Amino acid sequence: MQFLSDNAAPVHPRVWEAMRAADEADAPYDGDALSQRLDEAFSALFGRECTALWVATGTAANCLALATMTEPHGAVICHEEAHIEMDECGAPGFFLHGAKLLLARGEGARLTPRAIRAVLEGITRGVHQVPAQAISITQASEYGLCYTPQGLQAIGALASEHGLGLHMDGARFANAVAYLDCPPAAAAGPVDALSFGFTKNGAKDAEAMVFFDPAKADLARWRRKRAGHLQSKGRYLAAQILALLQDDLWLDLARAANGAIAQVASDAGARSLFAPQANELFVRLSPAERKALRDQGFAFYDWDDETARFVASWNTPQDHALALGRAIAAL
Amino acid sequence: MQFLSDNAAPVHPRVWEAMRAADEADAPYDGDALSQRLDEAFSALFGRECTALWVATGTAANCLALATMTEPHGAVICHEEAHIEMDECGAPGFFLHGAKLLLARGEGARLTPRAIRAVLEGITRGVHQVPAQAISITQASEYGLCYTPQGLQAIGALASEHGLGLHMDGARFANAVAYLDCPPAAAAGPVDALSFGFTKNGAKDAEAMVFFDPAKADLARWRRKRAGHLQSKGRYLAAQILALLQDDLWLDLARAANGAIAQVASDAGARSLFAPQANELFVRLSPAERKALRDQGFAFYDWDDETARFVASWNTPQDHALALGRAIAAL
Amino acid sequence: MQFLSDNAAPVHPRVWEAMRAADEADAPYDGDALSQRLDEAFSALFGRECTALWVATGTAANCLALATMTEPHGAVICHEEAHIEMDECGAPGFFLHGAKLLLARGEGARLTPRAIRAVLEGITRGVHQVPAQAISITQASEYGLCYTPQGLQAIGALASEHGLGLHMDGARFANAVAYLDCPPAAAAGPVDALSFGFTKNGAKDAEAMVFFDPAKADLARWRRKRAGHLQSKGRYLAAQILALLQDDLWLDLARAANGAIAQVASDAGARSLFAPQANELFVRLSPAERKALRDQGFAFYDWDDETARFVASWNTPQDHALALGRAIAAL
Amino acid sequence: MQFLSDNAAPVHPRVWEAMRAADEADAPYDGDALSQRLDEAFSALFGRECTALWVATGTAANCLALATMTEPHGAVICHEEAHIEMDECGAPGFFLHGAKLLLARGEGARLTPRAIRAVLEGITRGVHQVPAQAISITQASEYGLCYTPQGLQAIGALASEHGLGLHMDGARFANAVAYLDCPPAAAAGPVDALSFGFTKNGAKDAEAMVFFDPAKADLARWRRKRAGHLQSKGRYLAAQILALLQDDLWLDLARAANGAIAQVASDAGARSLFAPQANELFVRLSPAERKALRDQGFAFYDWDDETARFVASWNTPQDHALALGRAIAAL
Repeated sequence: MQFLSDNAAPVHPRVWEAMRAADEADAPYDGDALSQRLDEAFSALFGRECTALWVATGTAANCLALATMTEPHGAVICHEEAHIEMDECGAPGFFLHGAKLLLARGEGARLTPRAIRAVLEGITRGVHQVPAQAISITQASEYGLCYTPQGLQAIGALASEHGLGLHMDGARFANAVAYLDCPPAAAAGPVDALSFGFTKNGAKDAEAMVFFDPAKADLARWRRKRAGHLQSKGRYLAAQILALLQDDLWLDLARAANGAIAQVASDAGARSLFAPQANELFVRLSPAERKALRDQGFAFYDWDDETARFVASWNTPQDHALALGRAIAAL
Repeated sequence: MQFLSDNAAPVHPRVWEAMRAADEADAPYDGDALSQRLDEAFSALFGRECTALWVATGTAANCLALATMTEPHGAVICHEEAHIEMDECGAPGFFLHGAKLLLARGEGARLTPRAIRAVLEGITRGVHQVPAQAISITQASEYGLCYTPQGLQAIGALASEHGLGLHMDGARFANAVAYLDCPPAAAAGPVDALSFGFTKNGAKDAEAMVFFDPAKADLARWRRKRAGHLQSKGRYLAAQILALLQDDLWLDLARAANGAIAQVASDAGARSLFAPQANELFVRLSPAERKALRDQGFAFYDWDDETARFVASWNTPQDHALALGRAIAAL
Repeated sequence: MQFLSDNAAPVHPRVWEAMRAADEADAPYDGDALSQRLDEAFSALFGRECTALWVATGTAANCLALATMTEPHGAVICHEEAHIEMDECGAPGFFLHGAKLLLARGEGARLTPRAIRAVLEGITRGVHQVPAQAISITQASEYGLCYTPQGLQAIGALASEHGLGLHMDGARFANAVAYLDCPPAAAAGPVDALSFGFTKNGAKDAEAMVFFDPAKADLARWRRKRAGHLQSKGRYLAAQILALLQDDLWLDLARAANGAIAQVASDAGARSLFAPQANELFVRLSPAERKALRDQGFAFYDWDDETARFVASWNTPQDHALALGRAIAAL
Repeated sequence: MQFLSDNAAPVHPRVWEAMRAADEADAPYDGDALSQRLDEAFSALFGRECTALWVATGTAANCLALATMTEPHGAVICHEEAHIEMDECGAPGFFLHGAKLLLARGEGARLTPRAIRAVLEGITRGVHQVPAQAISITQASEYGLCYTPQGLQAIGALASEHGLGLHMDGARFANAVAYLDCPPAAAAGPVDALSFGFTKNGAKDAEAMVFFDPAKADLARWRRKRAGHLQSKGRYLAAQILALLQDDLWLDLARAANGAIAQVASDAGARSLFAPQANELFVRLSPAERKALRDQGFAFYDWDDETARFVASWNTPQDHALALGRAIAAL
């Protein structure tokens, strides 16, 4: 029973169908009819003008978006446990040409205005330090926790005040929207660019970079090509995204994943590090307890020496979640 | 009737089937069973040990491969009309961290040992110039012409003599093998790394970087991740490649495309810049002649003011090729 | 008798004096009183507001200036024999993070509007090509030839029309002003940034980056520090520059060097590739003739198989120039 | 009375003399006789073969040296308060093309084997994390503390064990040798490359990159040129270094600076953060106390809210040190 990650789940049948339906040759790259529909689709979803570019991976989406707001001698403020800091093999250093990540703390891998301000206040020595130019936050965070719409407004105000770009890593944005139960625009807040993830939520290989500033989107187009991320048969990526947006399939799938993990959490009780707000659950478990669970057929990730991470996918069976909950409760 | 490019053709049905068959979750990234089979599959194909890594685009394949043989202060010798020079928005400058392309000439966008030697002889002023560290050749070339196995040996000898890496951009390697009618190993020659293209030949988004030096492959693994090209559901890329290798489907498809273009060429006669050796045909056509063809429903690319480029795909219908040939002959 | 290059000549006595006079500790980096005087000194010289930053080498001056006008995915149009293309070990690729040099031709290593326009007209394929963002010209050129004030206006107009930055490599700007016999502002024309060289003209290690746009200067400050070019005892660089500006010493020294080479040229006659317009002379000489000259004690540089380059310095003795002229005439 | 920094002190008279004596033109760049003597001079000093290259700034020396041991996708382990992390405007990110600094702690800005090991143990997730490739330590550290020869051996053993390069930032290496009172080789330990600082110790603008591996030196030559750090009149930099090496002038000057600060420390007593081991003293002082000292004419740097930093230079007058000591004691 698979709780290792949502990043290897199958592709949703409706996504497969949409890709097959796009088989007829159309203009290459993003000149095809499907890619051309993305701006409109996301503008409708967010209730404001935006530009959306597909890309195949979250790392590319994050780094290409950040590259539109950070110069090579600049810096991005992010959480010390952010994916861009921890898990991307220095990709930000590559895409941003050596710009720095300035690390801040915050509970559950969420930045607070206070933590951001502390980083900014440490930048006082002119050209001897890198200037902060952007903030990157993750919705839902690496611990599956969400920023509230109000919290986002506060961070956005701080970004504005200091002239910083604001980026959101939304690898699990769908799960955040499902939890917050608010319009996508409220869950995105005043960000300049959102990496809207679909791959973990039923797609094969499609993420949308959503830009609320068209100049940044134009810049990202060059950088996407230059990074080898402009696929020639881009219509298949657009097809995936459009299929998931259709009739809010993306939201249904995220709700399913969140629901499965909530089911487990209700049994895990006080062992949980946090009450889950997305599709991830962090549970304190001893090595012996983990072994016991694995012996029962549960696959999951060792977060650290004391904690295991369980992630549900859009297709996690209800009975697997029930079984896992019971197994944890029985430890 | 579509002769614009092979880069937007549909995905072959057997490739779709293979992807669907890979739907069951497996290890993420390239830890899955399919990705793990690639080394063996390509080693069998080339009759020698090699390591193969998937990547979604040709630009990424070329640049990641070149990054294993070129330092940031170094240079790659390539043809002045090579795709890496002309069409990748400076991607080599990005992936190679500012390393230079040193341009050489040669008929039909093919490098000759003499042209390479001329570039090398111009590098005499020590640290004031960039040192050449690699050669990149394209098989089949941007004009759809092939290097012969003997020609490749000569270039390989030159590379060895000067301690240079040798890379082959094989976006249309399949078409070259089909034309040369020789073992893939002979069509690759003594290269260190081959970008073996499948996307133009029936895949959705899959290229193989084939390394004949395992140390270079190890390096490419880091760089692939760092460039955001390590997809989490990599099994779908491996599935595409394996499906095309199965029963030499890749070769059948390339033969079909080559055959279609040969059909057109037999009618185009002396208007052709070159007798085609792959699936591309360059034909001298006046603006009025092009208009006439377009009015008859043929789509193609204006190479320059005097030349039109026609490209056949794996699925180009026989009657389209016949019709195009007749139409050109009738001009 | 030294005609090899002007880049290793001694330091002028007044420059030494000025450096010694700056010995007293002052604020580090460029916070000292001398560095603070540069803006005013160059604003007076050019008759318009500008910002001047010192740096120790011409390569750094050129590349840091270009970095203020070129994004990593962009390109700089320059002459195919420009120093930045030929002699800086790929430094532009480093400082510009992989941006490209787009090469154009033109007599005597000078760009023409026509040549620039030809490059621009070749950029038609959107994100598949790098966009031109700047033009770099060299005054005096690598062949010691000058752009006229009118010629500069024409190039400037073209740059404006296409929204391109305009940079001037003025490693021998002093020699150009001396030849053109015009105000420095006219010899600089409508450039956005000028690398004003002093090292070849009596300084030890000082070049001024003169920015006519203060935003570009601010950007260059960060990049200078980041490139390790912000010296802690910057006052010694400022002192050199101020000493050379004082009473137009820079112009006197350039006139002396130009005069020496004009003397040689008057004897070299038709063997000269060009009538010199600065302190460099290119003379057609056979290997035997070169040997003869070297046997007489003349040091010079082999430009290519048929041409020798002679460069005079600020301190080239009159009688050396006379002797060289006679020796060439006697061949 | 100046205790702000040693980085703006005057140039020692013997250094001026040596530069003037180098005025005669010689081969440009580092082809001159003085530059050619550096290898021998440093080999004699360290009692083993080494290669020494001059460069004008410590930032350049550090970053060029690290670039010989770190690939763009790699990382350097350093102290979280190291100069390369704190004060160089992201220069390592530039010179290392986006490679990362992995930060470790340790008292007085010195790394311990344990702290290094902790960083290494956190690198477990293959291509998802950057691999450590080098360690950089600072001798004397940013707090003016020294690594003992034994301590260096332990770190060197760890570096060897893990195949990491070892770099020493020796901006104040002279002060460390003076304090340790041991041969330079013992104070350098088993490093692969040492940035040996002279600028803070009587030079105008000269640091030596000392490589104990000739292949790394060869690589650094290319990178130095490419970074615009190969000065054309390099003989003046070599002259400075040779003058300071002559008769151990460098050591005398460092002893003088250390002695001055020791004098102050003897009066500062328990207010000192550390007993000084070089030419820097960190003293706990309230804002009011700082004001009192400044009112008495002492210039110094506010390290943080509670601590002031005092630095002595090679030319700090004995009576200034005495006066400062008394003033602190009298607070």
